[in-house]
Amino acid sequence: MFSLSITPRFSETDALGHINNTVVPVWFESAREPIFKIFNPNLDLSKWNLIVAKIDVSFIAQMDYQAETEIRTYVEKLGNSSLTLKQQVVQNDKVAAEGFCTLVKFNYDVQKSEPIDDTERKKLLEHQFQA
Amino acid sequence: MFSLSITPRFSETDALGHINNTVVPVWFESAREPIFKIFNPNLDLSKWNLIVAKIDVSFIAQMDYQAETEIRTYVEKLGNSSLTLKQQVVQNDKVAAEGFCTLVKFNYDVQKSEPIDDTERKKLLEHQFQA
Amino acid sequence: MFSLSITPRFSETDALGHINNTVVPVWFESAREPIFKIFNPNLDLSKWNLIVAKIDVSFIAQMDYQAETEIRTYVEKLGNSSLTLKQQVVQNDKVAAEGFCTLVKFNYDVQKSEPIDDTERKKLLEHQFQA
Amino acid sequence: MFSLSITPRFSETDALGHINNTVVPVWFESAREPIFKIFNPNLDLSKWNLIVAKIDVSFIAQMDYQAETEIRTYVEKLGNSSLTLKQQVVQNDKVAAEGFCTLVKFNYDVQKSEPIDDTERKKLLEHQFQA
Repeated sequence: MFSLSITPRFSETDALGHINNTVVPVWFESAREPIFKIFNPNLDLSKWNLIVAKIDVSFIAQMDYQAETEIRTYVEKLGNSSLTLKQQVVQNDKVAAEGFCTLVKFNYDVQKSEPIDDTERKKLLEHQFQA
Repeated sequence: MFSLSITPRFSETDALGHINNTVVPVWFESAREPIFKIFNPNLDLSKWNLIVAKIDVSFIAQMDYQAETEIRTYVEKLGNSSLTLKQQVVQNDKVAAEGFCTLVKFNYDVQKSEPIDDTERKKLLEHQFQA
Repeated sequence: MFSLSITPRFSETDALGHINNTVVPVWFESAREPIFKIFNPNLDLSKWNLIVAKIDVSFIAQMDYQAETEIRTYVEKLGNSSLTLKQQVVQNDKVAAEGFCTLVKFNYDVQKSEPIDDTERKKLLEHQFQA
Repeated sequence: MFSLSITPRFSETDALGHINNTVVPVWFESAREPIFKIFNPNLDLSKWNLIVAKIDVSFIAQMDYQAETEIRTYVEKLGNSSLTLKQQVVQNDKVAAEGFCTLVKFNYDVQKSEPIDDTERKKLLEHQFQA
């Protein structure tokens, strides 16, 4: 599991007094940084090699501005050139939102997917979800 | 169908040179405004009565900063107290991203769902998806 | 004057029930698009030639989510390689926020400023602020 | 001085390959949280008592996605009911952006400013800017 600690920003609240639902995909993307580094250790923008194919988010409980927040990121599934992550927003020891994200290893130069190699695969498998 | 025209903002691009994927949930939320008005005609924040239960987005093609963008919103499914919308990002006559959003009619005072009434139902059915 | 019509987004509100103050720089940047086009008619990202040197915003009145919003952009001052814009958020015929933005014509390849040419100058002068 | 450590988010970059300039006001607002807590220790949204009167930001150097980032916040000036903060974005030991923010202690119920009291004043003075 990868864990990212987040302090909610005031600008991330909305008029209903909680964290706006569009913020969760932003938090989840920021929590994927260690995944980005497995594929691109220096986060070199000219060598970016991941593309997002699909995301979903289930909103389980209202998220508070005042609560320290943890984003948990697990590897859920590992395919030939794609992987699916499970990500959670945890506040006060409860999962407030949960989602999946499918990423594809992608060669932007030739605009085609590429197989995940063994080194990447090994690192990813260390972060698998265990129920 | 509801149609919203959007001019992508420079701040919505990312370092890969296209619209960042976290922007699509923001665009989709803004395109749900006519749905909000069916449930709350004056968008009165003290009478808000919708909650987002789930969203998903499939990213089909890279989205360009320079392209005029249309967000199409359809009613896909209508339950007792919930509804599912289908929403699309259209650029250059092609669907670049597509997703579903499940909303629940919700009474924030008692923190419980409420049935969608006949007036709301009638208006929603005018915007059903026809394949 | 350049005028941009904006429908505030729900995600742009904050827990105090109005538009969050960090949204105004985003609106102002989006309203500078016609300025970008004077310097780069096709908004070609590989030929970008403007850099922001300074912004300021004065917050005059609370901004409402429900109000149709106009962003007004004027050319305030025109230097050799820089220009200063005056921008306003107008809701219900009142200026709710106002700010200045100094842009510099910039050659990213050589990382140096460049003089604003006569064609650009002529177009900019058509949008000067008249008190 | 208050110091906040920030890991830039991929969604905060723009198509020019650096952090978008509209992100700095967002970072600065998030770095004002300890100031909010001086005026409202539990960040109780129903007792919010600060309003932003003015912000400005000078952009000094391009900000990198890959660089660990520190936001420094100092009390620059302390008036009867208002205070001015000086805030900086520091990357690789250099100030990349700098700005001022004027806040007013504000009673939302009566929509009027209020004097900063002695307890608040004492805490604020501990974080004054020393050149």
